[in-house]
Amino acid sequence: MKTALVALGGNSLLRPKDDGTAENQYKRMKESCVILADMIDEGYDLVFTHGNGPQVGNILLQNEISSKSVPPMPLDICVAQSQGQIGYIFQQVLNNELKKRGVKRKVVSIITQVIVDSDDPAFDKPTKYIGPYYTKEEADKLNKKLGWSLKEDKKGQYRRVVPSPKPKGIVESDVIKALVFSGLDGPLVISAGGGGVPVLEKEDSFVGVEGVIDKDLASAVLAADIDEEFFIMLTRVDHVYLDFGTIEERKIHEMNIQEAERYLEEGQFPPGSMGPKIEASIHFLKKGGKKVLITSPEKLSDALDGDNGTYIYP
Amino acid sequence: MKTALVALGGNSLLRPKDDGTAENQYKRMKESCVILADMIDEGYDLVFTHGNGPQVGNILLQNEISSKSVPPMPLDICVAQSQGQIGYIFQQVLNNELKKRGVKRKVVSIITQVIVDSDDPAFDKPTKYIGPYYTKEEADKLNKKLGWSLKEDKKGQYRRVVPSPKPKGIVESDVIKALVFSGLDGPLVISAGGGGVPVLEKEDSFVGVEGVIDKDLASAVLAADIDEEFFIMLTRVDHVYLDFGTIEERKIHEMNIQEAERYLEEGQFPPGSMGPKIEASIHFLKKGGKKVLITSPEKLSDALDGDNGTYIYP
Repeated sequence: MKTALVALGGNSLLRPKDDGTAENQYKRMKESCVILADMIDEGYDLVFTHGNGPQVGNILLQNEISSKSVPPMPLDICVAQSQGQIGYIFQQVLNNELKKRGVKRKVVSIITQVIVDSDDPAFDKPTKYIGPYYTKEEADKLNKKLGWSLKEDKKGQYRRVVPSPKPKGIVESDVIKALVFSGLDGPLVISAGGGGVPVLEKEDSFVGVEGVIDKDLASAVLAADIDEEFFIMLTRVDHVYLDFGTIEERKIHEMNIQEAERYLEEGQFPPGSMGPKIEASIHFLKKGGKKVLITSPEKLSDALDGDNGTYIYP
Repeated sequence: MKTALVALGGNSLLRPKDDGTAENQYKRMKESCVILADMIDEGYDLVFTHGNGPQVGNILLQNEISSKSVPPMPLDICVAQSQGQIGYIFQQVLNNELKKRGVKRKVVSIITQVIVDSDDPAFDKPTKYIGPYYTKEEADKLNKKLGWSLKEDKKGQYRRVVPSPKPKGIVESDVIKALVFSGLDGPLVISAGGGGVPVLEKEDSFVGVEGVIDKDLASAVLAADIDEEFFIMLTRVDHVYLDFGTIEERKIHEMNIQEAERYLEEGQFPPGSMGPKIEASIHFLKKGGKKVLITSPEKLSDALDGDNGTYIYP
């Protein structure tokens, strides 16, 4: 049986020039789901995670604009809402694509909490930009009023920054695992959307915390937790590159953990984009994973045949 | 094994005088979950549904207020977001209450689509009020601009009305059933939140549609679909009453389908409140259900001992 966990990048759901309407989200989701349904039709048993950047950004903006009329929800609840939004569209569109192919499996989305550590240094030094831009004056006001941390993102334009703590475990992983391994007539599961809702473990209770977990790192933790052997990250680029954007740019077709760690140390992979994907790959392979593939949705089919994408092995 | 499907009324999540903040929602949820966790601790295997009135109302209002900056989402997506929001809070709080009692079962929320019929007369005659109030002028403008139906709710105050079609089936019911009957170490499932996201079945595809499904009717369809025998609706009142609000008011301790149908025809149960609960009871019992209980969360424990609440039998 060929199985894999597939992490859908934000790009598979909305692109920078997309307008973010529901129609637009359905269109992009359909493009991605045609590719995923083909893969399932060819005999793959898959489990899914996904990004939520633009969607949770819009939910936060809605909360803020309407805060005089509607009590704004904290970030963890906004992430949960984005899991509902994207999960619904994803399960509906993928279900429909599978039905067209005569595949009688259901797709379900599970609201997922991801455990982070209150000692994580990220809580002392928030780095993840979220939500809209503000002037210096507005930023100072928001800091005073709501205690937000704000930093200059572009020149003169400030944005809220939140912690991006490392995922330590998935609260619902045993349920996800049971569903994923319930066989070929069992459901296909969407979970850990947007990196999951971050929660702290306090005196045997889970408590939501404001933050954003990198979705590739959360996906790697989930993949390892449920003993998945193959982890696929779908993103904007077809390959991982060395010296990306320079005249020396070259594709990596295959590498092992040691090479990946060395390139990461050399600063080959920027922190905001490819870096977390390589970190996630290393985490997964060290926890017993057998194979990682990084490629674009368009090149996924070729990559599965070994003709494209970047593979990382232990 | 004692099993039941429990439908949590909106009142268990937020009350009319509550302010709707996250803190407030957590507080109410905790009150409800203490009662539910006690019931599980006493040996009940439960599956849950819940309302979403105030929450989806707030999400709609946020969408509208910020519509110049953020593309507003259609009602079906807003319902899915409310399932994410409430499902997250519900599963977290109930998980924590169970942990305190040493019960090692996980609680998970499943995003749920509920099938409605495009021929449902509700689509020609929307009756369900949602969202904020408008003046006559604003209402006319929204009708012209967005094609909304608006009706006078209170004198001079108009609100959007949407169809409330009857639920015909639950897209994810086989997955929910498999989870629910996976045994006492299996997960506790929250699903069909807010009556579920309404979808039409078109040429073998499911497509979201703007509308609101009564949560008690959707819960009854789900309970019957998964062969649950006991259906509990938690609401504001401890009992069902005859001649409610008059000097002749009296509690019903027990009735059968025939009595329920007769009282319903007599107009004993108003369409907006007790009516759908009685309709839901009749649907469930006719589909093979064995027992319905309608009571308040506070009286649930007494009611399970037979000392309170209204029971309905086939």
